[in-house]
Amino acid sequence: MQRLLMTGAGGIVGSMLRPHLRSVAPIVRLSDLKDPGPAEAGEEIMPADLADAAAVDRAVEGCDGIIHLGGMSLENSFEVILDANIRGTYHLYDAARRFGVKRVLFASSNHVIGFHERETLLDADSPPRPDSLYGVSKGYGELLARYYYDKFGIETAIVRIGSCFPEPRNRRMLATWLSVEDMAALVERVFTVDRLGCPIIYGASANRESWWDNRKTGYLGWVPQDNADRFRHLPHLSTPETDPEDPAVRYQGGAFVPAGMPDRRR
Amino acid sequence: MQRLLMTGAGGIVGSMLRPHLRSVAPIVRLSDLKDPGPAEAGEEIMPADLADAAAVDRAVEGCDGIIHLGGMSLENSFEVILDANIRGTYHLYDAARRFGVKRVLFASSNHVIGFHERETLLDADSPPRPDSLYGVSKGYGELLARYYYDKFGIETAIVRIGSCFPEPRNRRMLATWLSVEDMAALVERVFTVDRLGCPIIYGASANRESWWDNRKTGYLGWVPQDNADRFRHLPHLSTPETDPEDPAVRYQGGAFVPAGMPDRRR
Amino acid sequence: MQRLLMTGAGGIVGSMLRPHLRSVAPIVRLSDLKDPGPAEAGEEIMPADLADAAAVDRAVEGCDGIIHLGGMSLENSFEVILDANIRGTYHLYDAARRFGVKRVLFASSNHVIGFHERETLLDADSPPRPDSLYGVSKGYGELLARYYYDKFGIETAIVRIGSCFPEPRNRRMLATWLSVEDMAALVERVFTVDRLGCPIIYGASANRESWWDNRKTGYLGWVPQDNADRFRHLPHLSTPETDPEDPAVRYQGGAFVPAGMPDRRR
Amino acid sequence: MQRLLMTGAGGIVGSMLRPHLRSVAPIVRLSDLKDPGPAEAGEEIMPADLADAAAVDRAVEGCDGIIHLGGMSLENSFEVILDANIRGTYHLYDAARRFGVKRVLFASSNHVIGFHERETLLDADSPPRPDSLYGVSKGYGELLARYYYDKFGIETAIVRIGSCFPEPRNRRMLATWLSVEDMAALVERVFTVDRLGCPIIYGASANRESWWDNRKTGYLGWVPQDNADRFRHLPHLSTPETDPEDPAVRYQGGAFVPAGMPDRRR
Amino acid sequence: MQRLLMTGAGGIVGSMLRPHLRSVAPIVRLSDLKDPGPAEAGEEIMPADLADAAAVDRAVEGCDGIIHLGGMSLENSFEVILDANIRGTYHLYDAARRFGVKRVLFASSNHVIGFHERETLLDADSPPRPDSLYGVSKGYGELLARYYYDKFGIETAIVRIGSCFPEPRNRRMLATWLSVEDMAALVERVFTVDRLGCPIIYGASANRESWWDNRKTGYLGWVPQDNADRFRHLPHLSTPETDPEDPAVRYQGGAFVPAGMPDRRR
Amino acid sequence: MQRLLMTGAGGIVGSMLRPHLRSVAPIVRLSDLKDPGPAEAGEEIMPADLADAAAVDRAVEGCDGIIHLGGMSLENSFEVILDANIRGTYHLYDAARRFGVKRVLFASSNHVIGFHERETLLDADSPPRPDSLYGVSKGYGELLARYYYDKFGIETAIVRIGSCFPEPRNRRMLATWLSVEDMAALVERVFTVDRLGCPIIYGASANRESWWDNRKTGYLGWVPQDNADRFRHLPHLSTPETDPEDPAVRYQGGAFVPAGMPDRRR
Repeated sequence: MQRLLMTGAGGIVGSMLRPHLRSVAPIVRLSDLKDPGPAEAGEEIMPADLADAAAVDRAVEGCDGIIHLGGMSLENSFEVILDANIRGTYHLYDAARRFGVKRVLFASSNHVIGFHERETLLDADSPPRPDSLYGVSKGYGELLARYYYDKFGIETAIVRIGSCFPEPRNRRMLATWLSVEDMAALVERVFTVDRLGCPIIYGASANRESWWDNRKTGYLGWVPQDNADRFRHLPHLSTPETDPEDPAVRYQGGAFVPAGMPDRRR
Repeated sequence: MQRLLMTGAGGIVGSMLRPHLRSVAPIVRLSDLKDPGPAEAGEEIMPADLADAAAVDRAVEGCDGIIHLGGMSLENSFEVILDANIRGTYHLYDAARRFGVKRVLFASSNHVIGFHERETLLDADSPPRPDSLYGVSKGYGELLARYYYDKFGIETAIVRIGSCFPEPRNRRMLATWLSVEDMAALVERVFTVDRLGCPIIYGASANRESWWDNRKTGYLGWVPQDNADRFRHLPHLSTPETDPEDPAVRYQGGAFVPAGMPDRRR
Repeated sequence: MQRLLMTGAGGIVGSMLRPHLRSVAPIVRLSDLKDPGPAEAGEEIMPADLADAAAVDRAVEGCDGIIHLGGMSLENSFEVILDANIRGTYHLYDAARRFGVKRVLFASSNHVIGFHERETLLDADSPPRPDSLYGVSKGYGELLARYYYDKFGIETAIVRIGSCFPEPRNRRMLATWLSVEDMAALVERVFTVDRLGCPIIYGASANRESWWDNRKTGYLGWVPQDNADRFRHLPHLSTPETDPEDPAVRYQGGAFVPAGMPDRRR
Repeated sequence: MQRLLMTGAGGIVGSMLRPHLRSVAPIVRLSDLKDPGPAEAGEEIMPADLADAAAVDRAVEGCDGIIHLGGMSLENSFEVILDANIRGTYHLYDAARRFGVKRVLFASSNHVIGFHERETLLDADSPPRPDSLYGVSKGYGELLARYYYDKFGIETAIVRIGSCFPEPRNRRMLATWLSVEDMAALVERVFTVDRLGCPIIYGASANRESWWDNRKTGYLGWVPQDNADRFRHLPHLSTPETDPEDPAVRYQGGAFVPAGMPDRRR
Repeated sequence: MQRLLMTGAGGIVGSMLRPHLRSVAPIVRLSDLKDPGPAEAGEEIMPADLADAAAVDRAVEGCDGIIHLGGMSLENSFEVILDANIRGTYHLYDAARRFGVKRVLFASSNHVIGFHERETLLDADSPPRPDSLYGVSKGYGELLARYYYDKFGIETAIVRIGSCFPEPRNRRMLATWLSVEDMAALVERVFTVDRLGCPIIYGASANRESWWDNRKTGYLGWVPQDNADRFRHLPHLSTPETDPEDPAVRYQGGAFVPAGMPDRRR
Repeated sequence: MQRLLMTGAGGIVGSMLRPHLRSVAPIVRLSDLKDPGPAEAGEEIMPADLADAAAVDRAVEGCDGIIHLGGMSLENSFEVILDANIRGTYHLYDAARRFGVKRVLFASSNHVIGFHERETLLDADSPPRPDSLYGVSKGYGELLARYYYDKFGIETAIVRIGSCFPEPRNRRMLATWLSVEDMAALVERVFTVDRLGCPIIYGASANRESWWDNRKTGYLGWVPQDNADRFRHLPHLSTPETDPEDPAVRYQGGAFVPAGMPDRRR
């Protein structure tokens, strides 16, 4: 691989991942709506609005692989999500098709399956249960990735990222946390494995609490090494929730689940 | 139910279904982009562009149930599909939420699963394999329906319609054909069953050739009665295909599958 | 088979089944707490309290097969259910073991699985979800039947009876109804099939609405013929329930589910 | 299809099927070790020893499809089975490959799965449990058929024939019987369906007692119409077996199972 | 949690677990039929006969959580088991309901599934196969726990304990052994996890030989650390069994399986 | 075990395994077509052609266990494979039956399932998809092993060996490699576990890339320790394949898959 594009390079995940990309490709092209900061050696900066097809074309042209982190990563109004995640992801894949990019890592989200209960162990074949318009839009991206794989042969790693932060921010993240080192190891696997296909992968570290089963993607050779449990002693992670029937505790999507939900559904 | 809205009332399925709705609700509101013809007794005509949120609001207000056939039902450019099927379905569900509609029949499509091979028996939990941007947009509608059910309690029958025409038009339809009588019986079940939930139902008659298994939705009590086999003697249905590896024969989506596919993927 | 014992002979199911047993065995021994009425030709009357081991012994001795309908068939206090269904079923099976009875039909109940939602298609391997102390006691009977099969070779047909009445009494029974003719046909199969094993069978007619899948017991050759749908026009079956979230509508156990449930669980 | 080869044409199944082949192909080539009787209109007779590669080549050359009933269809010594079923089936498939035959119906046998218990419902994915060297050899043929499909694209219908006789000969055949009419209907489907693939099909009529589930091959449109139950009144089918633990009753393979089995395994 | 009740505190498991409970709750109430020895700091002693509802009420009142080890833990006569395990467990759960206890660890047993063969990997959804009246009574307790969860919201960890002893006592325990440290870690998880639900957990250490799969309860974050393999060199664990068909070797329940079994079933 | 026979002792796997057998049995009998070298202490040399029944009898007589590595382990002509693998394996099992050998390790091959795609996680119940006549013959051996287990009680560990070499030879072996130490540990388990049954085991080390799931045979206590990943830096393992659609990359069987395949199937 000569040149790797990373969209959403200025976001939390993008910023953490950036220094890990040197070993993946000699040239890394960083794109975001806003300026992700000056280019280091081996980096190119190319801002682009995902809703702007021509801009996306410019970002994609000349690349061999894409890490697509860009778009809206929280709940927002329908039209905002439409532009960033639905139109944007289409622009990206259609550019990939036209410019001959063969491999993509698509940052999907656990909010595609957020309405499953915590007791339900999920794997790649579990039915989607989005918990937000955001989750619905990520599910759309997954469908699009699969379509471009089946029809055009573009391989995508669909990564349903849990919570990729420096440290777990709340008790839920004891199960959903993904360390940047484990994320970087996944990136390395996605772009070096001989055959990727179009797998759905749950993006979580080897946490002691585990809701997701990645066995079906064992062929990728991604074996996360981190464990959120080492943060358990931190004060904000030590106090149990008091109501197991609270939708934010009952369902995997956490606080996205009760947001906007009418009282009688709780 | 006092008033039932049917979108897409001027299309093929809508036109065939229209005379069957009398027994489902005393008032039937018919909507489409184009005029679906003059109202008969018990009918109201209310044209609406699904991409126009205010128009959709006017169509939905005052209704107790919705049959959502509207939108683009063939492959088309991304922006056309976006307006009709993605924006349009969002407008519809959000109007349903705000106006208190509790039950919807959403016309999804077999093209959500068109890239499965014919030998694969599918049921409600089979993973989606869209064969077109159209199929991807219908998959989006399914996700949206599930989201509105889980979060807001709006029940939807997601019907992956096979081929709803007066007669099978080609050999593939010997498996995918759905007679209008069977479709009408499904409508009756959807709006009278005590609890609908949010099931995925394959919309095909009791054809001798069968790719889809509806057992998981046996609680609905929908038992199709028709069988495409009675048309098998017709000339255009009598000549076997000669190449079982032709993508249009190999995959369930038929001609949608090879459309636009590069030669080396065939 | 020379002599068939039927416990609970004076109950609703027992009374309806009684005239159908002539063709199953030359002598039918009828037992119940209360007198089930005078013996007809080929019948013996032998009252017994299931909680009385010696009485159960007398009822079982000399029989080749047992239809065990006896015990408490509605929710009741723990001690009443304990005596009738737990102690009673143990007495029955232990007598069967000591007197060499090789085949039993055990009337279990849909209330063993009453806390499954209607949308969940169940089969013989679905996990139990009892909706009442009564349902728990029937689950105990199922475990006991399996134990006597695995350890002692006594074959039992575990029949999770839906609603065996002359006609469906409420809308729920459109799915759960079992006609006495279909029940009698099942009895005939249970006592004439070459190998019975210890299957779990859902006791429902071939109703249009179907929650249960008996395919795994196709080896028995029981193919129910009746369909509750022919009663749908009756006034008490024609009015839809208005709240799909009512526990009595949401769960398979019907009115047993909300009985005694605290408000916040509903 | 211009010319259809049927091997084993002189056997029981072949003789019964012969008059039904007229409508499948204009020319039917009949082959067997022994002379299957004089050719009728549209028939060719071509005897061949399956162990003789050159003879098999002559039988296969010029044909478009093959019904492979030939070989040893009962338990026999290893070397006899080797010649007829292992070497013979290889000769047949390799001739098919070299002469361009694209579609085969391979008569496999229920004895490939004879060591499954009757209570186990089987489908196409159930693991093999051969009950005899004969059953092992038919399992070999199934593997060979799959290999020629995956590597060379020759489609085969693998039919695990139950008991194809004019009438059921014993109580076990109430479940395993396949009427010749249903077998002929399957032949018709195999050679006219647009895409066959390489399915495993259980060859039994729509008998009331059912051990096998063909739902996964619903795409073939084969819906058997006969039912062994209409013979149940016959004297040799009316008397129940007395020991459900008898291996010939316990396992699906019937009398093949205990044959040769040491006493302590029974 | 302020006060934790442990029943069966004087038994083998209770005695080993007792010193580990200090970190789980400030006050630990110890109950048993017989005196479990003098209270240490933070302990209360409260003897109770589980068959005595009033005594159970006294033990439960004022507690926030329960570890229910009490009852009969070996095969015994029906009436002894009835009093201790059936009546006793009902008394416990009904007291928990009335006194507002929200979380329970119920010591079930591998003898609920003892009649499964060793080669069968079990998980939480495997069907019960009790090997004893004791096993049947534990299955009853599991049903009761589920009922109190579904109807009243009392969460229970159903732990099918393998063999909780200081060391493995026989070769079977190389697979079934549960170290007290792993059991204590499970207790800690059960009473601190935000949402428990009503899971079935197999209580075994991370033994090299493994019959049970706890993946479905990965959300609990219980990762056993011990391994019976370190005792393999001990003389009583070194000599292989000589007959793999011995029921005590063939089935998971070990010596419970052949106990009382008639010769012809072995 | 007094005497262990190893066939194929002169092959690659046999030669590597030979020094590890000392601890398994006091006497090891080594057999091969060609001379496997002079006997060391505790060894016997007994050459035999597997196609020669009498020679196989001599090799088997007096042994308590067999490791059957012998036969043809690469693609070859049908008759060569027939003699070595089909006739040979039959000779071996029938000798085992007649001479009372109770336990066998049968070296099957990943080429029994070579036509599965890499993305498909396989376990013991996955359907066979042989990629060669060699793979078909190994599938035959598996059927034979199962038959001798079900009918005669001879236990076999069916080991689908991946790639047992000193080091991985190509990138595919990063997933399929089996170190001789892990193979030796498996041999130890097979001949000391109390009950073996007739499991299908995938023979691969604990490689980071994993296509196969052995959880169902956890009862054996075989936990491989090696990981091919430590060889990843070697030059011949460092260069990615460039075409994920190459059949040798797409399917698990590697180079066996495209061998002999016509161009249009690729």
